[in-house]
Amino acid sequence: MKAYLISIGDELLIGQTVNTNAAFIGSALSDINIDVIKSSVVADSLEEILNEFHIAFQMADVIIATGGLGPTHDDITRTAVIKFFDTELVMDEKVFEDLNEFFKSRGRELLEINKKQALIPKNSIPIRNTKGTSPGFWIEEKNKFFIVLPGVPIEMKEMMSNFVIPELKRKNKSQIITQRLILQTTGIPESVLYERLGNLEELLDGGKLAFLPNQYGVKIRITVQAENENECSNKLVEIEQRIRGKVGRYIYARGEELLEETIGKILTERNLTLAVAESCTGGFIASRITDISGSSNYFERGVVAYSNAAKVEILKVNEDTIQKFGAVSPEVAMQMAEGIRAISGADIGLSTTGIMGPTGATYNKPLGLVYIGYCDEKVCYAKKFLFGNDRIINKQRTSQAALEMLRRNLLRIPDED
Amino acid sequence: MKAYLISIGDELLIGQTVNTNAAFIGSALSDINIDVIKSSVVADSLEEILNEFHIAFQMADVIIATGGLGPTHDDITRTAVIKFFDTELVMDEKVFEDLNEFFKSRGRELLEINKKQALIPKNSIPIRNTKGTSPGFWIEEKNKFFIVLPGVPIEMKEMMSNFVIPELKRKNKSQIITQRLILQTTGIPESVLYERLGNLEELLDGGKLAFLPNQYGVKIRITVQAENENECSNKLVEIEQRIRGKVGRYIYARGEELLEETIGKILTERNLTLAVAESCTGGFIASRITDISGSSNYFERGVVAYSNAAKVEILKVNEDTIQKFGAVSPEVAMQMAEGIRAISGADIGLSTTGIMGPTGATYNKPLGLVYIGYCDEKVCYAKKFLFGNDRIINKQRTSQAALEMLRRNLLRIPDED
Repeated sequence: MKAYLISIGDELLIGQTVNTNAAFIGSALSDINIDVIKSSVVADSLEEILNEFHIAFQMADVIIATGGLGPTHDDITRTAVIKFFDTELVMDEKVFEDLNEFFKSRGRELLEINKKQALIPKNSIPIRNTKGTSPGFWIEEKNKFFIVLPGVPIEMKEMMSNFVIPELKRKNKSQIITQRLILQTTGIPESVLYERLGNLEELLDGGKLAFLPNQYGVKIRITVQAENENECSNKLVEIEQRIRGKVGRYIYARGEELLEETIGKILTERNLTLAVAESCTGGFIASRITDISGSSNYFERGVVAYSNAAKVEILKVNEDTIQKFGAVSPEVAMQMAEGIRAISGADIGLSTTGIMGPTGATYNKPLGLVYIGYCDEKVCYAKKFLFGNDRIINKQRTSQAALEMLRRNLLRIPDED
Repeated sequence: MKAYLISIGDELLIGQTVNTNAAFIGSALSDINIDVIKSSVVADSLEEILNEFHIAFQMADVIIATGGLGPTHDDITRTAVIKFFDTELVMDEKVFEDLNEFFKSRGRELLEINKKQALIPKNSIPIRNTKGTSPGFWIEEKNKFFIVLPGVPIEMKEMMSNFVIPELKRKNKSQIITQRLILQTTGIPESVLYERLGNLEELLDGGKLAFLPNQYGVKIRITVQAENENECSNKLVEIEQRIRGKVGRYIYARGEELLEETIGKILTERNLTLAVAESCTGGFIASRITDISGSSNYFERGVVAYSNAAKVEILKVNEDTIQKFGAVSPEVAMQMAEGIRAISGADIGLSTTGIMGPTGATYNKPLGLVYIGYCDEKVCYAKKFLFGNDRIINKQRTSQAALEMLRRNLLRIPDED
């Protein structure tokens, strides 16, 4: 099955909104072995939308269009659909009930303009919207599936996950199964990862591999194909084992798990608590940790010691140490980690101090210089890192390096370097 | 002038990468009055790329293709371009020098595979790449502009800003000028904003207006057209004044400025310092503030008082107050703001405490309940907010509400509600 995605909306063309919908839908379809052959963005123009419908209907078996279903004048997707299929709009009773329910639950009145949203093309099945007011539609014509969804990401995602994907999975009769696996690595550059993996053909045995680097690390994406799911799974397991044999120490998770989730699981399992003292990351590590639900069970507190006074007063860093070695030094990083551990009573203290840029560099201390401190009941040390010159990316990379240092200590993975 | 954008790459179709390039290019072209009529994503397939080139060349005056210029086997854009224009690749000496320079500066060896990157279509002018290894090309044929750029965002952006946009601006002979203005609002829902603005036709006098809501607020985008830049600017000024007359108190900035930047400017100007005590936002406010370069001049410190112990020990919150009113209460919010201000010696203390979800709600304290505390030398108070049930969005909305509360206090904008 081949799919064609159409995103409708001027705001996407003029770059006011980044098209995250196409990425979500592309990824969801790929996961069920539907090949996305093309994706396009068109203006809120009846002519352009109709033209695109024609192209898509020729090229693909599954057409998914998003956007332009709202109640206002510039939302014309509904009109384009009935023109394209030469049909008409009819009021759907269930959708109308949903609409009434939605407005009632929010204590709002159902306006005349909103009633229009219960109109759906006569040749379609409505897709219920539990997060908003515009239903989607599902049309089957000439063995093709034509699906229209709202452009609001949260509404579109819900409908994709609960209706579109299960339906398409049922309809797709392809004999070849594709499965993908993501392995998340951090702390190793793409080129070194590539080298360590060695001969990829041997490693993959017919599978495919892609490296997807970003500021948090490199994702390894493995893709295998086979005639049934078992065979796929077995291939994936074998490949994963071979990869872990070579670079396992850098892999913190399978799938799209975040490092802060990995850390949270380990701390919870071990019944350990954590406190952080941040200078250069300015609260970003604490914020990442507390993004995870349940983090209050293991995260005790954080201090953003941006000024030297805060380092001395709250964290009990020695003033002489700051004078002698500077705030960006392994000595201060260690004392910060030690200090936050001591005052909080947490099992582990973690700290950062560094020069994030764009200003603040000196002759001896370049932009991107960072020290991360780690302290538990047995060890207390600091490690040096040298990142780049972009402030935000430096914060992100430092936070990741700190969480990875924590993970390796928790799992007793010794440092190589 | 009409533009057509083509993004090349399987990773975009399967949703591994979100297409931020199209948004950046769309926005840059709109800014210089070039109308983006369509944008598409195609696979790394010679046939598909050629097909798309044909469609784009028919429809538009400016075609910008990105991606597929790297040195490896799946980068075939170069081949597609020479096939499309029936020309050949030639070695460009200047590009080759740039390449040599690039590898030398990084202490790396220029491999045979990299040399290929100095080959450009015979009918093109190279666009220098100062951030990476693949040059772009600029082709003029039949009064159309065909531009090919690398897919790496940082490289593409540099080439767009320094070469493509200035060149296109020079070539664009359109008599109609379009100008846009963004006004950033926060703390007012889209529907209320709409109501307060009243009759839009009167307000806009021929201009256009769009509301762009997200979790941080609603952007108002105003678009005007005229025959010269002066006329456009005048229209924008008039519309802006009328809008400010109605909802000025909610507008924190013009253009794409972030609220943390606005705050930073005001604090710097007034020579004031700030310290924050965060419970439910978990460091996110401190992190946003310290995202801004120069924030060390006004941001003194932050405390992430996730546990009650941290609130009592560091912030000197009264234990009895926590017992009596609970950690999520206006009393505790006020004491936190007062405490962080006192221990840091900062001019202003800001605090948050709340229930971010998905768990932690009680009968009296629903999910999304937040108190924000504010304290300066004259006033000390807490304000109640009720957000939703998504943890991350709650953190974002709380951080924005706290920064907005700070802005209004700094600018002496009284609370309405």
